[in-house]
Amino acid sequence: MDGPVLPLALSLGDPAGIGPELIAQAWAQHASAGLPPFFVVGGAGLLAEAAASRGLPIEIRRIGSPAEASATFASALPVLGDEDAPYTPGKPNPGGAQLALHSLGSAVHLASEGLAGGIVTAPVAKAELAAAGFAFPGQTEFLAHACGLEAEDAVMMLAGPSLKAVPLTVHVPLAQVASLLSTGLIVHRARIVATALREDFGIAAPHLALCGLNPHAGESGRMGREDSEIIAPAIIQLRAEGIDSSGPHPADTMFAPHKRATYDVALAMYHDQALIPLKALDFDSGVNVTLGLPIVRTSPDHGTAFDIAGKSVADPGAMIASIRMAGEIVRNRARHA
Amino acid sequence: MDGPVLPLALSLGDPAGIGPELIAQAWAQHASAGLPPFFVVGGAGLLAEAAASRGLPIEIRRIGSPAEASATFASALPVLGDEDAPYTPGKPNPGGAQLALHSLGSAVHLASEGLAGGIVTAPVAKAELAAAGFAFPGQTEFLAHACGLEAEDAVMMLAGPSLKAVPLTVHVPLAQVASLLSTGLIVHRARIVATALREDFGIAAPHLALCGLNPHAGESGRMGREDSEIIAPAIIQLRAEGIDSSGPHPADTMFAPHKRATYDVALAMYHDQALIPLKALDFDSGVNVTLGLPIVRTSPDHGTAFDIAGKSVADPGAMIASIRMAGEIVRNRARHA
Repeated sequence: MDGPVLPLALSLGDPAGIGPELIAQAWAQHASAGLPPFFVVGGAGLLAEAAASRGLPIEIRRIGSPAEASATFASALPVLGDEDAPYTPGKPNPGGAQLALHSLGSAVHLASEGLAGGIVTAPVAKAELAAAGFAFPGQTEFLAHACGLEAEDAVMMLAGPSLKAVPLTVHVPLAQVASLLSTGLIVHRARIVATALREDFGIAAPHLALCGLNPHAGESGRMGREDSEIIAPAIIQLRAEGIDSSGPHPADTMFAPHKRATYDVALAMYHDQALIPLKALDFDSGVNVTLGLPIVRTSPDHGTAFDIAGKSVADPGAMIASIRMAGEIVRNRARHA
Repeated sequence: MDGPVLPLALSLGDPAGIGPELIAQAWAQHASAGLPPFFVVGGAGLLAEAAASRGLPIEIRRIGSPAEASATFASALPVLGDEDAPYTPGKPNPGGAQLALHSLGSAVHLASEGLAGGIVTAPVAKAELAAAGFAFPGQTEFLAHACGLEAEDAVMMLAGPSLKAVPLTVHVPLAQVASLLSTGLIVHRARIVATALREDFGIAAPHLALCGLNPHAGESGRMGREDSEIIAPAIIQLRAEGIDSSGPHPADTMFAPHKRATYDVALAMYHDQALIPLKALDFDSGVNVTLGLPIVRTSPDHGTAFDIAGKSVADPGAMIASIRMAGEIVRNRARHA
């Protein structure tokens, strides 16, 4: 039996990007899309302008505490707090970046305090945030820090209707990937993934498929030895711990339809090995989920798209999918607890 | 006005793999699939057995010269030459590898002599061929040698209904990719690609999109310098030569549907960067085309699949697409000549 569900806290993202208009669009479709209750932290004025830019006749309503969100949600988009900024789509500026930081920090705080069920973060621009004093390579690393974890304990997973994929190394030059991989790193992150698939996604016995690093997974060492010397031992160790794992699989065939049907999640060795197939297959509906955190966090797997902000053309699919998935994770965690 | 078209020569591939049954299946569907005339080099007996294994009631007919193929083709699958081997699906052996080598070598010879319009090569097993004395890493390198070219002048392109992609480095460890890339290599291969798209594919002014090497194409050097120091200068040089090129593009978004619509071919920096999206999108219909050769050569983009050979389950889509594409290239070259 499910108890009452806390509302989700949405961070605005960079207000000059497509975040605000997609949040407004998602709320406008909340009934047909079956979205769980959510509220936005800050930006009531600019959200109204963003909604108007898409021709959405929606009401934005300020709330005094997260507890008011669920009652408000059916009739208006709830916004917590008075922080705001001018709506300047396509034109990022320091004031907007400050608002984005405030919104993100408050959302994390509310989820950590148990006042929000989880958070959905709209996209930010790294360069703008860095100029505003943000000292992390991305939101995922900030979240790990804010939750008191090491960066290596927060694992990014991309999830779409066709595929779930985890890059085991992320924002590093391709030439460094091989030297950064280790059996220990792979096992550590795979454990986090396996636990999250069970507890957050309700998959009782998840199967993890590990990509090879080299072409054809190295062809028995003829094209690189990492597959046999680093990845294969990790799989042996994971199996010994009872984690259902296979590989290293040749990465080129792993994402074909008949192969995708054989696993619950693909563990890729580097950024593009995971993100190329995800975005090729599920571009407008990919969700970035942070695994291993005490709080629930999802995010649409796209950027601020300053070039199309305010033009009514940004696709809300990934934002809607992110809100829906966060709600599902909250419910799954409640069942598991 | 198109003149008469020479028949295509098909090589058997490893006779213990899925090549023979797919050739038989392709012939059985030749009318509905609109395939140009072709003949097989050798293997009349095993082709009959392979056809029977799929329940195909087709006639195999020996011909004495390629010139007889087109008249025969409407009523029977033409086979040139008496070389044959037992049909042992799933069980490769030295005799089969020898037959595969003979069939490949003869097909190349016939095309080089102008007796066949081009060749379509069924899949071989590298380990089996090596044991039979084949000294090349793959069929593409053999073809370059057989045509009197350097290996760097034969360029592999993967082509499916959704995407054409060229890996600029191929069968090398991932850790070596960055050090193997150079502006000169990229420009050299891009020129071959541009010429082939014009002459072989009839694209008057092809647009080449170059992938970045690092995540997000390096983000202005924050994650690796190859994108700005090696790839970007290649694009400048290509444009100066009148070759329409763009990039380096972040590879993760390049294969999304709206991005694929903006270019004719993607130039990838390494094997899996090209083959992951191709096989994710077009697994059963991908064609491997060798660009830059004096002869026309295509091949289905899959392996021998010994595990399913003789079981009537192998999908003939890629073989049929390979035969059709070879015919189209032959016609385009004839128009261009």
